[in-house]
Amino acid sequence: MTRVHPMWLPDEAFRALGSRRVLVAVGPDDGPVAETVVAEVAAATERFGGTLVTTSVERPVTVDEALACDVVLAIVGSAGQVGTASATQPPPPGYPARTDPYLRAVQAVVEDWLALGSSVLSPGMFGLGRHRGRTVVVAADSAGLLYGLHALVRGGETSCTGPDDFVWDLPVNPVRMLDHWDNTVVHPVMGQVERGYAGGSIFWSEGRVRDDLTRVAQYARLLGSVGINAVGLNNVNVHAAEARLLTDHLDDVARLADVFRPHGIRVYLSVSFASPISLGGLPTADPLDPAVQDWWASAVRRVYETIPDFGGFVVKADSEGQPGPFAYGRDHAAGANLLARALAPFGGTVFWRAFVYDHHQDWRDRSTDRARAAFDHFTPLDGRFDDNVVLQVKYGPMDFQAREPVSPVIAAMPQTRLAVELQVTQEYTGQQQHAVYLGPQWAEILHFPLAEDGRTVAWIAAGLSEDHGPERRAAGLVAVSNVGDDEFWTGHPLAQANLYAFARLAWGEEDPLAILDEWIGLTFQDPSVAPAVHAVLDDSWRTYERYTAPLGVGFMVRPGHHYGPDVDGYEYTAWGTYHFADRDGIGVDRTRATGTGFTGQYPPPWRDVYEDVATCPDELLLFFHHVPYTHVLHSGSTVIQHVYDTHADGYDEVVRMAAAWASVEGRVPTAVFDRVTERLAEQERSAREWRDQLRSAFFRRSGIPDATGRTIY
Amino acid sequence: MTRVHPMWLPDEAFRALGSRRVLVAVGPDDGPVAETVVAEVAAATERFGGTLVTTSVERPVTVDEALACDVVLAIVGSAGQVGTASATQPPPPGYPARTDPYLRAVQAVVEDWLALGSSVLSPGMFGLGRHRGRTVVVAADSAGLLYGLHALVRGGETSCTGPDDFVWDLPVNPVRMLDHWDNTVVHPVMGQVERGYAGGSIFWSEGRVRDDLTRVAQYARLLGSVGINAVGLNNVNVHAAEARLLTDHLDDVARLADVFRPHGIRVYLSVSFASPISLGGLPTADPLDPAVQDWWASAVRRVYETIPDFGGFVVKADSEGQPGPFAYGRDHAAGANLLARALAPFGGTVFWRAFVYDHHQDWRDRSTDRARAAFDHFTPLDGRFDDNVVLQVKYGPMDFQAREPVSPVIAAMPQTRLAVELQVTQEYTGQQQHAVYLGPQWAEILHFPLAEDGRTVAWIAAGLSEDHGPERRAAGLVAVSNVGDDEFWTGHPLAQANLYAFARLAWGEEDPLAILDEWIGLTFQDPSVAPAVHAVLDDSWRTYERYTAPLGVGFMVRPGHHYGPDVDGYEYTAWGTYHFADRDGIGVDRTRATGTGFTGQYPPPWRDVYEDVATCPDELLLFFHHVPYTHVLHSGSTVIQHVYDTHADGYDEVVRMAAAWASVEGRVPTAVFDRVTERLAEQERSAREWRDQLRSAFFRRSGIPDATGRTIY
Repeated sequence: MTRVHPMWLPDEAFRALGSRRVLVAVGPDDGPVAETVVAEVAAATERFGGTLVTTSVERPVTVDEALACDVVLAIVGSAGQVGTASATQPPPPGYPARTDPYLRAVQAVVEDWLALGSSVLSPGMFGLGRHRGRTVVVAADSAGLLYGLHALVRGGETSCTGPDDFVWDLPVNPVRMLDHWDNTVVHPVMGQVERGYAGGSIFWSEGRVRDDLTRVAQYARLLGSVGINAVGLNNVNVHAAEARLLTDHLDDVARLADVFRPHGIRVYLSVSFASPISLGGLPTADPLDPAVQDWWASAVRRVYETIPDFGGFVVKADSEGQPGPFAYGRDHAAGANLLARALAPFGGTVFWRAFVYDHHQDWRDRSTDRARAAFDHFTPLDGRFDDNVVLQVKYGPMDFQAREPVSPVIAAMPQTRLAVELQVTQEYTGQQQHAVYLGPQWAEILHFPLAEDGRTVAWIAAGLSEDHGPERRAAGLVAVSNVGDDEFWTGHPLAQANLYAFARLAWGEEDPLAILDEWIGLTFQDPSVAPAVHAVLDDSWRTYERYTAPLGVGFMVRPGHHYGPDVDGYEYTAWGTYHFADRDGIGVDRTRATGTGFTGQYPPPWRDVYEDVATCPDELLLFFHHVPYTHVLHSGSTVIQHVYDTHADGYDEVVRMAAAWASVEGRVPTAVFDRVTERLAEQERSAREWRDQLRSAFFRRSGIPDATGRTIY
Repeated sequence: MTRVHPMWLPDEAFRALGSRRVLVAVGPDDGPVAETVVAEVAAATERFGGTLVTTSVERPVTVDEALACDVVLAIVGSAGQVGTASATQPPPPGYPARTDPYLRAVQAVVEDWLALGSSVLSPGMFGLGRHRGRTVVVAADSAGLLYGLHALVRGGETSCTGPDDFVWDLPVNPVRMLDHWDNTVVHPVMGQVERGYAGGSIFWSEGRVRDDLTRVAQYARLLGSVGINAVGLNNVNVHAAEARLLTDHLDDVARLADVFRPHGIRVYLSVSFASPISLGGLPTADPLDPAVQDWWASAVRRVYETIPDFGGFVVKADSEGQPGPFAYGRDHAAGANLLARALAPFGGTVFWRAFVYDHHQDWRDRSTDRARAAFDHFTPLDGRFDDNVVLQVKYGPMDFQAREPVSPVIAAMPQTRLAVELQVTQEYTGQQQHAVYLGPQWAEILHFPLAEDGRTVAWIAAGLSEDHGPERRAAGLVAVSNVGDDEFWTGHPLAQANLYAFARLAWGEEDPLAILDEWIGLTFQDPSVAPAVHAVLDDSWRTYERYTAPLGVGFMVRPGHHYGPDVDGYEYTAWGTYHFADRDGIGVDRTRATGTGFTGQYPPPWRDVYEDVATCPDELLLFFHHVPYTHVLHSGSTVIQHVYDTHADGYDEVVRMAAAWASVEGRVPTAVFDRVTERLAEQERSAREWRDQLRSAFFRRSGIPDATGRTIY
């Protein structure tokens, strides 16, 4: 196997831990994730000259030995016991404290926290701090211990020195999931990874799981280190070969589950709603047909016989040609609950995507608005989904554009578990040719106070609200992964920051620039490169927005592959993605007063903020309104001059980004430097195309010159 | 093998011949094409109850037997001998008359024509007529006999009845060639047949020639019947697998040559100019390097050892990424002559394509004009190409658009053998989804009096001029084939008419509607369907022109696949294909006065006709001039109203075409009816898109309403 880039876990990141004497207090019942913690510490101490101290029944650690350690990592269960949890289950209520003599030593170190009691301990939670000159990690379960270990590693030397201090941390979202749009066989149009920009699949080769899963293990370790706990293994567009993963090739799924399990990650399959027909030979896939229900129950039972901790299903139904319940006159609740009831006995979950719209729209028909579709389809079903259904909602009403309003569906289904879907793979945001750090976009989405009571998207997804009854269940965040078998994992080495940022935001971190700083520190280790990398990435999403589709109008990309400019590329298509630019103006009237009424799907105040051109934010103006090119923005500029200016400025910023990157030559590995340099050259070329094509196209239409006199071709 | 459609050779077409007593006077030395004639007559007479009479040394036909025949087909050589020629060689000068007694009987029948002497006899020539109550075909060689046989078949009962009458016929073009853009392996982007719309290749499967060549034999018979005498077996874009046909897989080529040979057709290979490097392991492909010259000489020698009548090479060099002589600082003459000199000892020919232009053009640069490129590259080389080089020139300066001016290169290289290239496969003309009979377009091109002395394109290609010295060699017509492994050969059954029309125009027929009538008669046999098929096809090219890109502007198609409308699809690309439409006007200024100067490449009067907007024909106005939408055409309409009108009218015509076709239900085979009906429905859908998108796009830009008040979306 080719040696691949270590991403945010280079060996050097483990120096502080590895050069010390470290006690890992876990027992043989704590499962494979705890073993991973032991193995991480063992590898680090071996590399950097430290010592791993473990305890066992045969050779319990003594109090003196424990007190002699610099670092202690321990699982603390309910009622103050130490070393209790398994990887997948929190300790049951009333679980007796373990009294084995060998635990006393550990208790001597962590006893101060045992008094906190079990009530604050929840899955994945950990405490990390300095206490009496030692660094201590305590966790509620083995996953928490793993997360605490990596929090310690991220802190580096700072974690292992300094005065006493202590913080508890826990994942705010129960669901922290990455979906892979990988096909097991290369699709003739979409390739092996649909919307993948980093080579082939790390999982699949020629229809089957790869023989060598070393790389998958590296990936699982990376994801586990930042708290990802669920991975969808195959494309939501399920083709014939992939459908068979559920049945004939279940052993392939099991091999992957075995690789992810030690990192606290459960695996999920995308399944075809038509499986009872295509795989089962039934005449129907009607969710109300008992034979169909039986087929799914049997199929799921076989899955759990093979993979006891299988996560569940991801389903794209009645969307872009995928089969679904509509064919049988049933709604999405009936469809989702069919699968949910098969999974429920085993603790599995259905992720049911809300990305449903008419992809055979007639562009002549201005009454249909794709932005309305998910809300119209799903909000009437609120309260009808089973508890183990998660409705997976794209962050915006269209499709992962660089700028969209937040989807109103997110605030409109209080009785439904709801996960917000982001796209780490840069489909519409530069395809990992462009350096675009998406953390700020996602943070802006997550912090947006969508609900009438002011709750943000993040709060709604995490279920952090007292407004809802006990039926209300938290879910979290899902994103489409950006990795492939590329040596840097992500094609563009700096796109690793997006994978990292998604995980950290899903955990509950809030500041995208702090996350970026953390990523830079871990990845490059040399603090002197941080200013340059920040100069490239900090504002890169807004830079990308500047030189591409303006003011929220979206979709001015080449049809099909979605790379590079094409002002009218989607204008007369069946995809519902229009801007209606003519010689006088541009934009989509989605008001209630004169347009499609989409603004009415928002709660107050947004339904009125967006409705009124006077209050609609500039960056979303053309998403909600059709205005003349001479319309004056809040910024004071006209729409047309804004287009001219932002496109010229955006390109200039890319030139500055490239210059900033050039300054790190010799301070980052040559291969990384070269790859990023090459991609920045392409970004500069592409941004120049965006600049010149957009400026020309809008000038040709409007006839209005650029007030600054810059060249329009 | 699936049973396939017989195209223009249904069994029924042979009834008149097959029901008679037919003497075929050929000898054992006359070769495989003569054997084909015997086999055709044998099959026809067996089917329809007639009798085949042949002569041989063992059993010479008697005079009485010959005089008892209704039909006589005979080869007559130089100096009046009968039965002399071989399939591939005309009789050498002074070839002695054959005096075998068995020929006397034939001479008794054909003696009237022997007096015409050898001077009028040329390759492929034949005489066909009625004489003393018999139908007689005499030919200069076996190919001529085959062509005469099929002329007789086309005439049907009319050939075999009626008063004495006689006509000589001969192909005006020595080159009558079909190129296949077939890849031996499926290309990831272009598929197996580049720009193919009729399924996979009939030649190749998974990198090798097909095991079963039955279908190739059927194809060869069809082509031979209409006088095609050359076939290029593989795509001019030569990928790695196809390059090996020249060496490792020469046996595959030989198998195909064996199948084409009995029908008077020689095979050609597209080769990569870089073959000495990629196949030969040399460090260079420089045409002036002796090692390179030796490599080609050896490679060609091996080809002719395997295939003694191999035709030669087709070469796309320094074009759209294909390698060529430019890399070594050499010009196209040096490149072409390199291959020509390797082929010359064996009688082979190089077809060197003139389709050379900058496909990485900067759309911002208005001084570069793709239309100029072929002329600029090649005319300085006139007189420098070896005699066995044919320069293959696309009919227009751009790329097979539905409407372009004729390429000025055709009149500008008097010292060069020159073949005009047409495209039977409907890349830009509806992709065999649309019924578009291209005969009228090709006839218009061929009849265009391009040269200053009034010679037409057809005359120049055929070398029919006394203005040039003995160096001037005739060539002819080449076209890209439209067949694939589809059961109707061409996807759209009516697209068979284009293959037929190309062959008949290459032969020298002039009237495309007469050709179409001939094709309809042969193909459908039922005369009652002719009016409906004419109603569909007669004006279909102009109909297509009406609803697609207007007034010669071209290229308003979806990039890449080239199907369906996209007004700005090629506007900001690297392909040199722009229209510069803005809110005020549209078109490309190619004048000498204010534009790119392309008009200056034409001889008088065209250089002035096209230069002046007042004399430029309407249908080419936007090819040569940028005008306001309000510009008044010679037709009296404005440009904008012309767009509105022709697009609405063009769609209406498609509706009428579909209605005309519906009337033949029950009178054509159901499979044909259904396929054509299905394609007409797609044509109607597509034409409606063209209509509505073009009308909308031009209205949005111009702001000028349709004077007729028809809906603009």
